[in-house]
Amino acid sequence: MHSVEISLGDRSYPIVIGSRIFPDGLPLLADIRSTTAVVVSNTTVARLHLAGWTAFLATVYPQVRVLELPDGEEFKNGNSLDRIFTALLEWGCDRKTVLFALGGGVIGDVTGFAAATYMRGIAFVQIPTTLLAQVDSSVGGKTAINHRLGKNMIGAFYQPRLVICDLEMLATLPQRELSAGLAEVIKYGPIADMALMDWLEASLDAVLAKDRGALAHVVRRSCEIKAWVVGQDEKETGLRAILNFGHTFAHAIEAGMGYGVWLHGEAVAAGMVMAAELSRRLGLVDGFFVQRLTTLIQRAGLPVRGPVINAADNAGRYLDLMRVDKKSEAGEIRFVVIDGPGKAALRTASDALVREVIGACCG
Amino acid sequence: MHSVEISLGDRSYPIVIGSRIFPDGLPLLADIRSTTAVVVSNTTVARLHLAGWTAFLATVYPQVRVLELPDGEEFKNGNSLDRIFTALLEWGCDRKTVLFALGGGVIGDVTGFAAATYMRGIAFVQIPTTLLAQVDSSVGGKTAINHRLGKNMIGAFYQPRLVICDLEMLATLPQRELSAGLAEVIKYGPIADMALMDWLEASLDAVLAKDRGALAHVVRRSCEIKAWVVGQDEKETGLRAILNFGHTFAHAIEAGMGYGVWLHGEAVAAGMVMAAELSRRLGLVDGFFVQRLTTLIQRAGLPVRGPVINAADNAGRYLDLMRVDKKSEAGEIRFVVIDGPGKAALRTASDALVREVIGACCG
Repeated sequence: MHSVEISLGDRSYPIVIGSRIFPDGLPLLADIRSTTAVVVSNTTVARLHLAGWTAFLATVYPQVRVLELPDGEEFKNGNSLDRIFTALLEWGCDRKTVLFALGGGVIGDVTGFAAATYMRGIAFVQIPTTLLAQVDSSVGGKTAINHRLGKNMIGAFYQPRLVICDLEMLATLPQRELSAGLAEVIKYGPIADMALMDWLEASLDAVLAKDRGALAHVVRRSCEIKAWVVGQDEKETGLRAILNFGHTFAHAIEAGMGYGVWLHGEAVAAGMVMAAELSRRLGLVDGFFVQRLTTLIQRAGLPVRGPVINAADNAGRYLDLMRVDKKSEAGEIRFVVIDGPGKAALRTASDALVREVIGACCG
Repeated sequence: MHSVEISLGDRSYPIVIGSRIFPDGLPLLADIRSTTAVVVSNTTVARLHLAGWTAFLATVYPQVRVLELPDGEEFKNGNSLDRIFTALLEWGCDRKTVLFALGGGVIGDVTGFAAATYMRGIAFVQIPTTLLAQVDSSVGGKTAINHRLGKNMIGAFYQPRLVICDLEMLATLPQRELSAGLAEVIKYGPIADMALMDWLEASLDAVLAKDRGALAHVVRRSCEIKAWVVGQDEKETGLRAILNFGHTFAHAIEAGMGYGVWLHGEAVAAGMVMAAELSRRLGLVDGFFVQRLTTLIQRAGLPVRGPVINAADNAGRYLDLMRVDKKSEAGEIRFVVIDGPGKAALRTASDALVREVIGACCG
């Protein structure tokens, strides 16, 4: 069992990484005792993992309640949020109630936002069950729901009290979702740590085969990098934006295709190739680097070309969607580009150049 | 023009109190410049005050947008919140947009919560137009909406960047609302400052006649006391709870009658008499103090007896509603009581005693 600390003053917390963490890890909950624990999960994850976790939690919390939401990005919305609030109120949950998010990014984001806003904030614990959630979405305190006019538009910065990354849960993860998670792992290389990229190129087969040692390295190193970034810029006033490498294009893909058609990680994969190509055309990296990244993404079982989201004016549609992205200011799109391998920067680019990139990288 | 500072580290901000603060006060907005200001108001306030404020704001912000919500506590809900989000997204508002809440407590609470959660937080400014909002709800960063199962159940602690209390706006305030605001002013006496209670007893007629000097004293002293409390306990882990004197009973009255039937301040008025009577029966204050407080509340044009909210078992209904109040823990109701004039404390009380108080103080 390994622990990575997120250092944010009185909002600091550990990410615990290991295999079969409970029941040995029950002392981790010592500081978060309460009469009631509420586990929010989705129907898919619940079938696989819920019984075990509620049994562990019942040894610490006198009352353990469970709320199952339907599975899918399309349920990351105000309706699911209200279902959580209604359940908490009907169960008489007070400000000492502890919320557990048992699931992937959707469950973590919705549950985290519910915790941030129920009675103006209650304690919550992330138990991410997908690789993507373990290496990215459950770490750093970003919570959100989608609005019908934009992804992740409504949310809060709200830190969990604890994140439990149990690698055993990845055993039941479909291969497509494993690959989607790898997109966020691959991301950390170009923006911060080329040694991780080297390691991935050498060890990708072991990761794809779910070798526990390889997974442990992937999760630990990803969390360390994210902890380092978030510890310096919790609320994304600067540095933290580099974690969005590939995400500006990805959000356009997700919105343009309809949420849930492409997995988030798949959209990020294609988005990273587009962002790398933009970096090349800005003169920041060479074609060899773009090819190297593209090859790694492809080997991970991920798409390396963006979809056509509008037959008449594909680039125009991408641009429209990217302009309403949260990172945009006054309609100006700020792209995370690679300013030499292992280093990210924020740049704007002319519409003409972005159109070239989209033309070269889509369809 | 007078300024009271809320001291919360990098979330500190001033409350500016005066008459006809703008246009002279425009430099106050120097640190909150942006391309776009969005003013959220209600139809009643908008008719009286909107044109003047948008004209001032247009001299600072190139783009000033306005969203009018219907007037009333019954609109302090998720629908109004979504109307704000939808407008912000349709207008292409980014994270630099500044939200202005022009209205009473409902507008301030909903707009503040929208600011707390739109794109995970944007800047906002409170321009409270009621006495209640100027002395209480706009100060201290509590934002919320009601859930159909409970008042203020969904919200966030989120501080404004500036609060502008313009006393001229109280000129158009209906007398019933002025009285409702006075309930929260009267509250500060028993819990923290008996000198304010003495002053109110001597000067209540001038306040009710909207004498600007008297109003200035009332708003300033109330904000100073609230600033002192909030500065020590922003997130209500302890001391801040004393500001809820009378509110546990009041929330039961509002929920039991249906939100909006009694004004919040009216419910607090009757609730303070009930909390004072509870304090007396706990042996903490004498009957003379309860009578003195009751007389002042009555002189302010406020109810001193609670309503009957259930003909069959009135006290039982009060107790049920108070048990789901946010201040409750594990079903145990924590009352703010007066532990001698000018000093508040948190206490539990037996159901039997609370039933006695409700029997003596309602109907």
